[in-house]
Amino acid sequence: MISKNKIKLIHSLSQKKYRKKENLFLVEGDKNVLDVLQSKINIIHLFATQSFITSNKINSNHAQEITEADTAEIKKASLQKNPQNCIALCKIPPQNNLPQKLENNLSLFLDGIQDPGNLGTILRISDWFGIEYIFCSPDTADIFNPKVVQSSMGSICRTKVIYSTFEKIFNLAKSSNVKITGTFLEGENIYAETLPERTLLIMGNEGNGIRKENEYGVDKKIMIPHFAINNNKAESLNVAVATGIICSEFRRQQLAGVLFEMK
Amino acid sequence: MISKNKIKLIHSLSQKKYRKKENLFLVEGDKNVLDVLQSKINIIHLFATQSFITSNKINSNHAQEITEADTAEIKKASLQKNPQNCIALCKIPPQNNLPQKLENNLSLFLDGIQDPGNLGTILRISDWFGIEYIFCSPDTADIFNPKVVQSSMGSICRTKVIYSTFEKIFNLAKSSNVKITGTFLEGENIYAETLPERTLLIMGNEGNGIRKENEYGVDKKIMIPHFAINNNKAESLNVAVATGIICSEFRRQQLAGVLFEMK
Repeated sequence: MISKNKIKLIHSLSQKKYRKKENLFLVEGDKNVLDVLQSKINIIHLFATQSFITSNKINSNHAQEITEADTAEIKKASLQKNPQNCIALCKIPPQNNLPQKLENNLSLFLDGIQDPGNLGTILRISDWFGIEYIFCSPDTADIFNPKVVQSSMGSICRTKVIYSTFEKIFNLAKSSNVKITGTFLEGENIYAETLPERTLLIMGNEGNGIRKENEYGVDKKIMIPHFAINNNKAESLNVAVATGIICSEFRRQQLAGVLFEMK
Repeated sequence: MISKNKIKLIHSLSQKKYRKKENLFLVEGDKNVLDVLQSKINIIHLFATQSFITSNKINSNHAQEITEADTAEIKKASLQKNPQNCIALCKIPPQNNLPQKLENNLSLFLDGIQDPGNLGTILRISDWFGIEYIFCSPDTADIFNPKVVQSSMGSICRTKVIYSTFEKIFNLAKSSNVKITGTFLEGENIYAETLPERTLLIMGNEGNGIRKENEYGVDKKIMIPHFAINNNKAESLNVAVATGIICSEFRRQQLAGVLFEMK
């Protein structure tokens, strides 16, 4: 049985101000919740069907509080259109500190990504392509937005996201001998170019791209060429798709041993 | 002024059964509507603000009927959370016939894609990478779903989508000397492989991948390798992102002249 107060609390967590106030966020969907159970994220309260609890051998080690609920109750509490068998109320973990040095050869800076679905998909891409750090400008969407959590498909548990100004990340990149690479209309054809062997990829806002005032920091401008039929074409690619394509091309070049060696 | 009946009609078009009954679909968002205005799609009724009408020089050649409405009225009629300055009621165009032969060197078959956002994003990717035909299994999401139209960002006007069984597309591929390529867990590393110079890429359902009963038709099984940190990784990539990566890799190989030549 999920109390009225808990339902109210759950619904309030769709808004950032209540997430901040309560220091809680929501994880829904069986796969997502199972990923959280395996992570260091602290589950304050788990609401789940009996069959979910039994088949996944959930016990008091997994959550501070566990409440059995039927699917009708979960549907009532859920923010999802098609809820599954569980809802987890989780504590927002403290933000990671900025690393002293970037050791990983591929990192991301998101310069004002607005759409939660895009942000979640970018976390999933980062997880797949072994990106340790995803830096976000302060105005990027909140990673604890339920839609981000949902579309990350559990990757929110495995990636390190740090909100920070571009200036700080620029300084970190410089001191780590990492080159900043970004997409620009006038950039060089990514298929004809070799990427720097240590790259921080900057991806811009959906409508406006990379902020003008951050352009100073970009060492390498690239673009993904289009193959229009009759010159009548899409104006751009979705930012998550573009991120996936560039990360994939970076890893391909790494495997092929053609990454641009840095002095 | 948008009449109550029109608002009711607009809202009903979020459902497939009403789209089918009325033979109408909805286009929202300034950029999307401007793309439709430049296409062969027939606009039955355009609702737009005075400034949209003036600044885009909209006249009676553009739509059968034009109604000026203020932003409050548009918000009331809209299915969007953040509507812009116009809503277009459009006639669903007749489906293209299956071509006699696949002339283009890259086509797509979508095997049960369910999420409208994914389908729209795949249309946008197809538009960017010069894919003429996107074939969809009959159970793939409806391209006239407002969320598909929205996330296609106008690409719905420029791509040819045909709903058809896999068997028919398989026969078309065979008779066109086109190889069917699909992603499988046990597929070959896409970065180490050369793709067939004439490819039909099959992309599977979000949860279940390519249907077992369609596997017989796949000539080449590929996979996008992952680069996990500590072997703890995302289970998969989003299907639209994977589509983008493979299309990009195909075009890269084409430019590099390394596509697998077919006998």
